[in-house]
Amino acid sequence: MATLYHFPFCANSRFIRLVLAEMGMEPVLAEEKPWERRDEFLMLNPAGQTPVLLEQGGLVVPGAGIIAEYLDETRGLGLTGRRMMPEATADRVEVRRLLEWFLVKFDAEVTGYLVTEKISKRFMSSRDGGGAPDMNAIRAARINVGYHLKYIGYLMARRRWIAGDHLTYADLAAAAHLSCVDYLGDVPWDDDETARDWYARVKSRPSFRSLLADRVPGMPPAPHYADLDF
Amino acid sequence: MATLYHFPFCANSRFIRLVLAEMGMEPVLAEEKPWERRDEFLMLNPAGQTPVLLEQGGLVVPGAGIIAEYLDETRGLGLTGRRMMPEATADRVEVRRLLEWFLVKFDAEVTGYLVTEKISKRFMSSRDGGGAPDMNAIRAARINVGYHLKYIGYLMARRRWIAGDHLTYADLAAAAHLSCVDYLGDVPWDDDETARDWYARVKSRPSFRSLLADRVPGMPPAPHYADLDF
Repeated sequence: MATLYHFPFCANSRFIRLVLAEMGMEPVLAEEKPWERRDEFLMLNPAGQTPVLLEQGGLVVPGAGIIAEYLDETRGLGLTGRRMMPEATADRVEVRRLLEWFLVKFDAEVTGYLVTEKISKRFMSSRDGGGAPDMNAIRAARINVGYHLKYIGYLMARRRWIAGDHLTYADLAAAAHLSCVDYLGDVPWDDDETARDWYARVKSRPSFRSLLADRVPGMPPAPHYADLDF
Repeated sequence: MATLYHFPFCANSRFIRLVLAEMGMEPVLAEEKPWERRDEFLMLNPAGQTPVLLEQGGLVVPGAGIIAEYLDETRGLGLTGRRMMPEATADRVEVRRLLEWFLVKFDAEVTGYLVTEKISKRFMSSRDGGGAPDMNAIRAARINVGYHLKYIGYLMARRRWIAGDHLTYADLAAAAHLSCVDYLGDVPWDDDETARDWYARVKSRPSFRSLLADRVPGMPPAPHYADLDF
């Protein structure tokens, strides 16, 4: 059985949890607090970031984008009709463009700020950078999330799913990131109904259940977080 | 003929210039200053970043990592013996791990700071964020580059090329980033001879020539920049 090193509110880890669940894989989940920089974890992934997939045979696959490519190459062909990386060249470019959009750009502009300031800092020692949240970072993230929500709405006004006709990695990456922001109550859903409808569809998938059960100790989610009909 | 939208000192653009040259492709080079946020460029790539490859048939491929995957999938098989993405699963994971290391992590910790502060800001209007360089950012980047150089030395003490037995995308990405830092004279080459020897080998390849001819107007490179025997 594979092991996934993850942090429950690391959005890129959540993306891989969704991918594995959609593939019917049930890995051992090992919680990792990346800011602790554990030696054993740094040996697995010198970059020090979650998620990391450790295959039963010992192969280490670090990083959400790399794990997604790896899982598609090793398991994708068995998913007839449910493969999350398309076959046509132009479609692959579009899925990868949006995958990077959410795993890197949305993370840098929204999720990274909010999760670090509002969640991780509660558990970090002051030596690791813990302490009071930086309100400027939170304000910037709240402005940025509005632009991203509009972009999702723009795409969804033209497509069945974010990258085209089928559910792909791009939908799961976008929804994984939004789920972290939604836990914190920071998604302005009323600003874009099209984006909200898309999120409700992804959120209703069985693969999403374990994410909706995650809780930050001492910090309940926004009231609608686990509500499928929000 | 394909067109590459690039900025000469965008390290991720340099990586794709190297890849195209290694593949024997000669694209039209269109210089783009990403901070100007030209409407026509944002239509090609809403993320607003270089590089972007525009194929003759009209397909737009944005982002260095995505262009690399695309070129391997469309041209890689024709490169018998010189393919820069290996076939074996574990080797592909390692190339992608190191590709992301340089295109994202090294960029965020070193090249992004140095190129923005020392080069781009000279050409930006004050509205776009131009002005005097932020010395704290430059100092941080100079400390970080030392750690990265040691990591390259560590890898090269165990391997023929950065990701294994063959030249791969990982070598070109690492060398592209170091070439920008080297122009500015900020690589502490004396700290790691193993890393320096590897760089000298990559730098001697014909694909590197056009990078070594780039100049920032009014800002000559470090004296050894174009010297193959530095």
